[in-house]
Amino acid sequence: HAITLATFYALPLNAQEAATSDAVSQIAPQLGRYTQDVLADRLWADQDRLTTRDRSLLTVSALVATGRADQLDRYIATALDSGVTPEELSELVTHLAFYAGWPVALPALNQIAAALVDRGITADVTLNPELLPYDSEAEAARLATVDQTARPVSPGLADATDQVLFADLWRRPGLAPRDRSLVTVAALIANGQAEQLPFHLNRAMDNGLTFEEAAEIPHQLAYYAGWPRSFSALTPMRQVFEARGD
Amino acid sequence: HAITLATFYALPLNAQEAATSDAVSQIAPQLGRYTQDVLADRLWADQDRLTTRDRSLLTVSALVATGRADQLDRYIATALDSGVTPEELSELVTHLAFYAGWPVALPALNQIAAALVDRGITADVTLNPELLPYDSEAEAARLATVDQTARPVSPGLADATDQVLFADLWRRPGLAPRDRSLVTVAALIANGQAEQLPFHLNRAMDNGLTFEEAAEIPHQLAYYAGWPRSFSALTPMRQVFEARGD
Amino acid sequence: HAITLATFYALPLNAQEAATSDAVSQIAPQLGRYTQDVLADRLWADQDRLTTRDRSLLTVSALVATGRADQLDRYIATALDSGVTPEELSELVTHLAFYAGWPVALPALNQIAAALVDRGITADVTLNPELLPYDSEAEAARLATVDQTARPVSPGLADATDQVLFADLWRRPGLAPRDRSLVTVAALIANGQAEQLPFHLNRAMDNGLTFEEAAEIPHQLAYYAGWPRSFSALTPMRQVFEARGD
Repeated sequence: HAITLATFYALPLNAQEAATSDAVSQIAPQLGRYTQDVLADRLWADQDRLTTRDRSLLTVSALVATGRADQLDRYIATALDSGVTPEELSELVTHLAFYAGWPVALPALNQIAAALVDRGITADVTLNPELLPYDSEAEAARLATVDQTARPVSPGLADATDQVLFADLWRRPGLAPRDRSLVTVAALIANGQAEQLPFHLNRAMDNGLTFEEAAEIPHQLAYYAGWPRSFSALTPMRQVFEARGD
Repeated sequence: HAITLATFYALPLNAQEAATSDAVSQIAPQLGRYTQDVLADRLWADQDRLTTRDRSLLTVSALVATGRADQLDRYIATALDSGVTPEELSELVTHLAFYAGWPVALPALNQIAAALVDRGITADVTLNPELLPYDSEAEAARLATVDQTARPVSPGLADATDQVLFADLWRRPGLAPRDRSLVTVAALIANGQAEQLPFHLNRAMDNGLTFEEAAEIPHQLAYYAGWPRSFSALTPMRQVFEARGD
Repeated sequence: HAITLATFYALPLNAQEAATSDAVSQIAPQLGRYTQDVLADRLWADQDRLTTRDRSLLTVSALVATGRADQLDRYIATALDSGVTPEELSELVTHLAFYAGWPVALPALNQIAAALVDRGITADVTLNPELLPYDSEAEAARLATVDQTARPVSPGLADATDQVLFADLWRRPGLAPRDRSLVTVAALIANGQAEQLPFHLNRAMDNGLTFEEAAEIPHQLAYYAGWPRSFSALTPMRQVFEARGD
């Protein structure tokens, strides 16, 4: 079942947009055409390379990470329809508070809360869940890297990285590690931090992301953060793929 | 004819700005001074290094690409006054949907549509124009590069690059290739993707952008995306200039 | 005196947020918990590594530089309460007009003006102050660098850098050079321009920023611009620290 144009484009987001939507159709018919032909019928319709659920996680993450909460509505709907739970959305935003900053997470949270209220959905979020176990070997390697790179420069940042992000945030069970990696990789690409992809793409694939799925990530994000962001991700991605022998 | 301060600064953008404009003048008179002396009387008034039309294309592109649709109004006015057509604005935004993402293009399109409605302007945009011919040699080189860099990592992205961006978008006649390059270069600099300048600056100069015009681009953009973005563009720009022997 | 949660999180920013604040608390209780435990009780409460005044300058700068004027209110309050003057806020925004662009400075200025009006504060800003003297040796080195890197590529940008930024803006006495450097470094890290940190971090430390203070900057900014931005700053920071022998 293909996504229709209405989901992505024709649906006005607010009063100002509604007032000008006819003018928009008139002055940029070709953008509407691309949205239908390329985004809806081609990108989102391709569920072989990446499921609609994964495309939704990537897209919502890119929008949150780049501070485009105003554009979230239609993608929250698609996320919920494709099986993303309210708790996963909550964890996604909380994760991105650390990976893209509180100032982009808070407006996104309001947007998501409003969408859930509109749908009459009550989220059931556990405040103190039992945390997932550590992967001791991976964690030991990560700790060593932080001790070498971050601690000599910023001990406060190194402590928070170890004690809050990896001892707590990443171990929260409300979002699977593989999906948490997907969210992180989307934020890195969308915000142009390709130099940090090697660690997180490796972690994503250790967490179960396949080569084929990873390969489609820059394609999906190109439409939501721009072609250049995705192209800058290709070199570090190729290095990871080659090093893993995938 | 110099651009007046009112065009760039004193003109309130919305109700909240109007309510505080006196307070703004009071707390930041020096920013008003810089706006008049440096931006209006010096930068925009210099039509030798770059025409007002080109400065408008660069500035509107930077604002769209960085997601500042809320600041577009005054620059849309300047663009239209300096000869940019509604169809060119439409193509500019459509181009940036690909080069900076749908989430920044859609609000910009609304802003432009509203500006045209306000002025009683009707855009005459052709949905299916006759596409410009390929430059076969340049296109063959580009295809080879994509096959080498993008296709092994992300075949979906490689296909879309070849089939949508370069077989279709870049060939649309509503915005001249030289101006399309200007828009692309502005987006790359404003969003901090200097590593992708060599390909697009070369393409821009192949498309007719002169050395003197190119040299003024980072000066214009410094005021609209910040000094650091422009300074990061200087090294790749110098490499292109030197390689071309300009 | 620790900062309370209300200062950073529970305080609704606008009507839409107020309407959904209960829903937010319900769907993301863990983000509220992190905000209290990690940001309020741990980060901001640590006045040994960095004063609340410095944390405020960094945070306000990051929000302005990344275009998050909508999130400024609570931090303007904290800035004023910790001793940042209205004139310093005015100079901070004017400085960032150059270092992050007019399009992010103008909305921030409106936000600050509104906050001052709300508090009944009148700013006393001098339009034509006596400028601080040059550090002749540092300025000669800087001029030589600009002549080598910027002038051959963009003479317009080189002239404005010398004549407006360093002959005027940096010499304005309303914001101390050390604080002006803090603002600049925050903008560079928050916007992902780590490649330009060496010059400005060295200048900051020449202007009086200590090693211990510098070390805490990426920790503070991690919460406001995201972990990846701060991690990308660590390598250039370490190089500066090592070269200075601090």
